[in-house]
Amino acid sequence: MSEAPRIIRKKTGNFLEDFEPGQVFRHKLGKTVTEGLFTTFTEFSMTTNPLSKNARYARAHGFDGLVCPPGLAMLVAFSQTVEDISENARANLEYIDMRFGAPVYVGDSIEVETKILGIRPSSSRPNLGIVHVQSTARKNVGESGEAVVMAWQRKVQVYKDDEAAEVKAGEIEPDAIECDPWLPDYDGSRDYKALAHLSNADTYFEDFEPGTRIEHSRGRTITSEHIALTAILDNTSQVHCNQYMIDLDPSQYVGGQLIVYGGIPFVLCLGLSCPDVADNAISDLVYTTGRHTAPLFAGDTVFTATEILGKRDLDGRPDLGVIETRLLGHKFVRAEGEENEDAPAGWKKVEIFSLDRAIAVKRRSHYA
Amino acid sequence: MSEAPRIIRKKTGNFLEDFEPGQVFRHKLGKTVTEGLFTTFTEFSMTTNPLSKNARYARAHGFDGLVCPPGLAMLVAFSQTVEDISENARANLEYIDMRFGAPVYVGDSIEVETKILGIRPSSSRPNLGIVHVQSTARKNVGESGEAVVMAWQRKVQVYKDDEAAEVKAGEIEPDAIECDPWLPDYDGSRDYKALAHLSNADTYFEDFEPGTRIEHSRGRTITSEHIALTAILDNTSQVHCNQYMIDLDPSQYVGGQLIVYGGIPFVLCLGLSCPDVADNAISDLVYTTGRHTAPLFAGDTVFTATEILGKRDLDGRPDLGVIETRLLGHKFVRAEGEENEDAPAGWKKVEIFSLDRAIAVKRRSHYA
Amino acid sequence: MSEAPRIIRKKTGNFLEDFEPGQVFRHKLGKTVTEGLFTTFTEFSMTTNPLSKNARYARAHGFDGLVCPPGLAMLVAFSQTVEDISENARANLEYIDMRFGAPVYVGDSIEVETKILGIRPSSSRPNLGIVHVQSTARKNVGESGEAVVMAWQRKVQVYKDDEAAEVKAGEIEPDAIECDPWLPDYDGSRDYKALAHLSNADTYFEDFEPGTRIEHSRGRTITSEHIALTAILDNTSQVHCNQYMIDLDPSQYVGGQLIVYGGIPFVLCLGLSCPDVADNAISDLVYTTGRHTAPLFAGDTVFTATEILGKRDLDGRPDLGVIETRLLGHKFVRAEGEENEDAPAGWKKVEIFSLDRAIAVKRRSHYA
Repeated sequence: MSEAPRIIRKKTGNFLEDFEPGQVFRHKLGKTVTEGLFTTFTEFSMTTNPLSKNARYARAHGFDGLVCPPGLAMLVAFSQTVEDISENARANLEYIDMRFGAPVYVGDSIEVETKILGIRPSSSRPNLGIVHVQSTARKNVGESGEAVVMAWQRKVQVYKDDEAAEVKAGEIEPDAIECDPWLPDYDGSRDYKALAHLSNADTYFEDFEPGTRIEHSRGRTITSEHIALTAILDNTSQVHCNQYMIDLDPSQYVGGQLIVYGGIPFVLCLGLSCPDVADNAISDLVYTTGRHTAPLFAGDTVFTATEILGKRDLDGRPDLGVIETRLLGHKFVRAEGEENEDAPAGWKKVEIFSLDRAIAVKRRSHYA
Repeated sequence: MSEAPRIIRKKTGNFLEDFEPGQVFRHKLGKTVTEGLFTTFTEFSMTTNPLSKNARYARAHGFDGLVCPPGLAMLVAFSQTVEDISENARANLEYIDMRFGAPVYVGDSIEVETKILGIRPSSSRPNLGIVHVQSTARKNVGESGEAVVMAWQRKVQVYKDDEAAEVKAGEIEPDAIECDPWLPDYDGSRDYKALAHLSNADTYFEDFEPGTRIEHSRGRTITSEHIALTAILDNTSQVHCNQYMIDLDPSQYVGGQLIVYGGIPFVLCLGLSCPDVADNAISDLVYTTGRHTAPLFAGDTVFTATEILGKRDLDGRPDLGVIETRLLGHKFVRAEGEENEDAPAGWKKVEIFSLDRAIAVKRRSHYA
Repeated sequence: MSEAPRIIRKKTGNFLEDFEPGQVFRHKLGKTVTEGLFTTFTEFSMTTNPLSKNARYARAHGFDGLVCPPGLAMLVAFSQTVEDISENARANLEYIDMRFGAPVYVGDSIEVETKILGIRPSSSRPNLGIVHVQSTARKNVGESGEAVVMAWQRKVQVYKDDEAAEVKAGEIEPDAIECDPWLPDYDGSRDYKALAHLSNADTYFEDFEPGTRIEHSRGRTITSEHIALTAILDNTSQVHCNQYMIDLDPSQYVGGQLIVYGGIPFVLCLGLSCPDVADNAISDLVYTTGRHTAPLFAGDTVFTATEILGKRDLDGRPDLGVIETRLLGHKFVRAEGEENEDAPAGWKKVEIFSLDRAIAVKRRSHYA
């Protein structure tokens, strides 16, 4: 160019002072689930429910084909909200009342909108506050129809851009979003038993006992693959993928290194626990509450446990029952002299994730 | 939970004393081949046969679409047997009579069963023995049909859980499994020559000369990507993906680090040798014997060579011929003072893989 | 084998003396775009144009489904030419008049041919010369039709195999290849505005101002993932994937380490700049010139800027306009005492890529 150009630097995302109760964001992009996305995440997470692995099995249960595991459906939907809601967040505080509706298949296009429910400035930290939001994810059905696939709330701690700016504090009631789990009909004429060898034999509704805690045997080490996994979800937050930014001022960032996007341990914990808890799940119903309790870095190995909190019948579905669980994720870090009781010598156990999770599970009486 | 929960730890996989001759395992899960899985492995392996790269070429040869390369078909089928048969194995000793049947396409769902043929306790090591198995992989065809895609035997060295437990030693005859290669008809009205520029011109049946050894030019370095590649195959063995387990007691594990799943060099050796050996293959027929002769780790670079052992006509197919080959994989390790004759100063060549492999190859007379 | 086999080592690719003006290469393989390939690259590059993310949006604009981003279309086409043209190249010097035609969709099979336009030996370096080529990529359409998807020229610096061999120097005129951009019709009856929230609101034709330079905010660190990304494109050049070759003689190779294939920063620069420049692009039209100006290695973080060089109407399309841009890529390297003006203390900014790029962009007047 013949003379010095005018430089443009765009701001991305919103800050605390940009939100107000009742405001609605229809998020950009939308995302079509391809077989590439489906396989990358389903297999990364080590999910073992055959509904997400074997199309013959899924169709025989009344689904249209391979079913997105709940963790992937959640990540596709959730990540659409990041730029508008949490690009300038310090931390995601809590997942609330995360409900599942229509199943997500390969080929579905997911679009998401979010309503701001509440804003509360921090009393002690003038540059921060908490934003409470309600999000709804829909998929297109045919030419013009649509179905709700997920609805949830979350609370997120967001920075102010200008400490002096006015914050529009307040709180409104959430909308009543219809998001009922779609469960395929039980069809007595089908030979479900002929498929029973394809899932674990000890994970039917009858097998779960409240008051027990299952220590899942498998662990999985996270590598620098997390950078690509985060990008595939359209999460562009720089703390996950921009090493130069970290190198310029490591002390500004948690652990002084790239941090793994919370969605990665979220799906991995669901997957690692699957063989013992969800191999015969027909659908996840609701995550009443969930949170990340410690950061994860490349090189860490993730382990999980599940507490069985309760079990109950499911109205109108004698073939199914509901188990109420708490999914817990942890890792071990070297900590000579600071070992805790659950860790071997030289190591400390660190809880990283907790999710209260209700699952609709098949009964052996009807399926095996 | 209000009181300390009862802790449940599940055992996965079987031990030497759990097997008996004649026992049949119908393996869990099953696996649908998606375009994500297809592309990940086909491209990782650097395969160059256009049947697996170019759908127009594949259809013009009489296939339904892109054809799974033999290494991928094998890995999808084989990995389904790992949890039941070799989760508690020390080593996979030998692949035997591994035959290919129906081609595997994107969308096919593969399910596998395994019969225990023999069990032999080790005379010198009371905690080990050899299990000899026969596995058959089928795909669904239409609503209720099925076709055998692969059949094979293998011998695997398996640990006992309890050294004092009785072993049900014995050996039975293998079943006669029909698994004939599906070869598309030669159709003289098709203009195969119009496609001949898409494959290497010097790899027709006429080009192979028994008694030659082809040193394939390409090498490929393995990275920590092997962890995700192993998970995508449903192989959950912890020695491939759980760094914490290794760190707790490195001396217990080969090389004191995560070991690369043997399936990874298996497909990579097939792919690296493809441009010189299998660019004009129409199908792999049988792997009479094969074994892994040294472990592979992240950072190693894999190279290959192929010995042409023989060639012969194929009954009823004047357009094709069979070449009998031995595929060899190797790597180089730094070994100051221990160099061997095939390696440069400071390095030692280490054989990692050997596979006796018969391939049906197009004749130039009919196709180019 | 009973006696020592005869050893065969094949030469791959062509050398300077193998080319002559007018020569035509119909390249091997061809490549079908799967959903695995599509997702891997689209998401790696962090592209944000919904035409490549959301099939509902793409169909509503008159496309058949998800549209390959221009960088991916280019890489699939370009990489097919590597073995014949640049396997033995020292450097790719320039991309010239790279034009886009028919859109590329999942399922399309791309085949490419290249004509040698010119050969010029180096006057100062007897083992090198410049080859000027013209390549055309076509996709199959239906049973027997085809459409040009891209046409381009490039200049590449190629080694001689034998310094004494004669070089067939000369230069011929390029062919006139028809490769006009396929732009979906504007249909006034469609409710485009109902989709406008899915793309960035400030990237319509009206928003661009010649003489400005946009510093895109996002950076992305490259990991060893580049090895697999290169293989997925059928680029088999050993300098990208063979660590052993580098280790044998590091001083022979740029940086003494594996170098990242230029196609990787090419797509990444397009993607990182997308939210500010191409979110409302309907098609890339032409890359008049482009070049890689410095190498990239694993661990580097890529940043981009775009200069708006000009803007103009597009004949017959009042709904669209053309913006002429220069896309620039850069990275920062530690350089204590050698900082340049655009870099913070201890760092030096290094330009890695430049591409002159004309894009057809939607007008707000018609779409939002």
